[in-house]
Amino acid sequence: MNDTHQVTEDRAVTLVDDRAGEWRPEAARARFRAGLAGPTAGVAAGRTQANLISVPADWAYDMLLFCTRNPKPCPVLDVTDAGAWTTGLAEGADLRTDLPRYRVWRDGELVAEPAEVRAHWRDDLVSFLIGCSFTFESALSRAGVPIRHVEQGRNVPMYVTGRQCRPAGRLHGPMVVSMRPVPPRYLSAAIRETGLLPAVHGAPVHCGDPSALGIEDLDRPDFGDAVDREPDDIPVFWACGVTPQAAVTASRPPFAITHAPGQMLVTDARDEQYRVV
Amino acid sequence: MNDTHQVTEDRAVTLVDDRAGEWRPEAARARFRAGLAGPTAGVAAGRTQANLISVPADWAYDMLLFCTRNPKPCPVLDVTDAGAWTTGLAEGADLRTDLPRYRVWRDGELVAEPAEVRAHWRDDLVSFLIGCSFTFESALSRAGVPIRHVEQGRNVPMYVTGRQCRPAGRLHGPMVVSMRPVPPRYLSAAIRETGLLPAVHGAPVHCGDPSALGIEDLDRPDFGDAVDREPDDIPVFWACGVTPQAAVTASRPPFAITHAPGQMLVTDARDEQYRVV
Repeated sequence: MNDTHQVTEDRAVTLVDDRAGEWRPEAARARFRAGLAGPTAGVAAGRTQANLISVPADWAYDMLLFCTRNPKPCPVLDVTDAGAWTTGLAEGADLRTDLPRYRVWRDGELVAEPAEVRAHWRDDLVSFLIGCSFTFESALSRAGVPIRHVEQGRNVPMYVTGRQCRPAGRLHGPMVVSMRPVPPRYLSAAIRETGLLPAVHGAPVHCGDPSALGIEDLDRPDFGDAVDREPDDIPVFWACGVTPQAAVTASRPPFAITHAPGQMLVTDARDEQYRVV
Repeated sequence: MNDTHQVTEDRAVTLVDDRAGEWRPEAARARFRAGLAGPTAGVAAGRTQANLISVPADWAYDMLLFCTRNPKPCPVLDVTDAGAWTTGLAEGADLRTDLPRYRVWRDGELVAEPAEVRAHWRDDLVSFLIGCSFTFESALSRAGVPIRHVEQGRNVPMYVTGRQCRPAGRLHGPMVVSMRPVPPRYLSAAIRETGLLPAVHGAPVHCGDPSALGIEDLDRPDFGDAVDREPDDIPVFWACGVTPQAAVTASRPPFAITHAPGQMLVTDARDEQYRVV
């Protein structure tokens, strides 16, 4: 994943400043359509954010099966019909233009990272919108859990783990996780609040020693930015919707379009819609 | 759905008597393989039960998309590779023989309801195991909620509703629900306990007046048996894994195999594995 990491690295700056979370989702999408780019954590607080992966129809079954077999990293919120760039989750949104930044992949290689993908679009693309952990950050905040990467104006750190996903057809690859440092007194609240939102990755997959996931150095994430931790903080790892991009790298489908890590679709859906109780 | 209903009706008797829920799952499957038939509510308490639908590979994407777009009635627990009759959810199980009773469908018509389907099997069948509300009955019982149909030795009543599922490719059809009468003092516990188990239909889709779902007469279910209610009981409706069978009837794929309503695969998985917190 290193070369893909390097392409992103110099862009991992927060140009998006909605730390108050006050933007309406359609206003956020309009700004991204107009060229604003950057991580979307904290944008339009309370509105569900989504990862994007679009693959040719010939690969759609493998991708949908991969998501079904790996529901923690790949909870599917919507699937389009082939060629469509609209979704019922975001009124008037154009999936080709309304995310801050995209990635274009050929044969598993990252070939471009444009601000919109109309020129790359194909009539046979099926788009998957996958739950994003930014969605549960409002719930964490309400429970008092500090969101370090938002406080520090950085993208969330993400890591490729040593855990392989369950393969599906021609697709295989490792699970990617996002990490948030959590003070011990908030750990049970963090687990409870995110557990109630299984459609956006649910409860953590691991808490504590990163080496249990095969992560060597928390300060060198594979995507996003390293985040400063307080001495007592426990690193808490949630399955991440960048996992399909790791599957693209490992499995080399002929073509794919994804969001750039951390730069999500902001939908109209409210986080509460995905809360199970 | 009426003709399919009539085929089942005379068989809707409880031949299976594990009301203590003491059978081990592999012992339950062995009994069904040997010919025992009947509704599986209460069997092997605490073990996850699953609906089955097997369709030709050519229809697998439509079915998986239908399930993804309708996660309340069709939460997918496992999908096999084409032709396989095994699942990681049930060690040593043969999906062709280990359910109590099956249904065989041609062009949307029910053509047979055999005790095993080895003679009907095809190498291109992809099998979907879908969460079943019997799974959450252990949690309901622990919370004190009476399970009327188990107490009365009947199959759970199921109804075809007036609510259409979100279509997917060539598949469309109405949502099917199961109904349990719940005393008012247990209603919030019933909603909470099932909400924590979204992989087996989660919280109810409706409580109270059946006409809101287009159900005319609770005493005439489309599948399963009518159940006696206490005067104060509130009818509570959960989305049901028989919904894919209603889609088969409405959409007429050339071939399908399903379980008979209420006669499920008993897996080795523990209900607790599907609890979100």
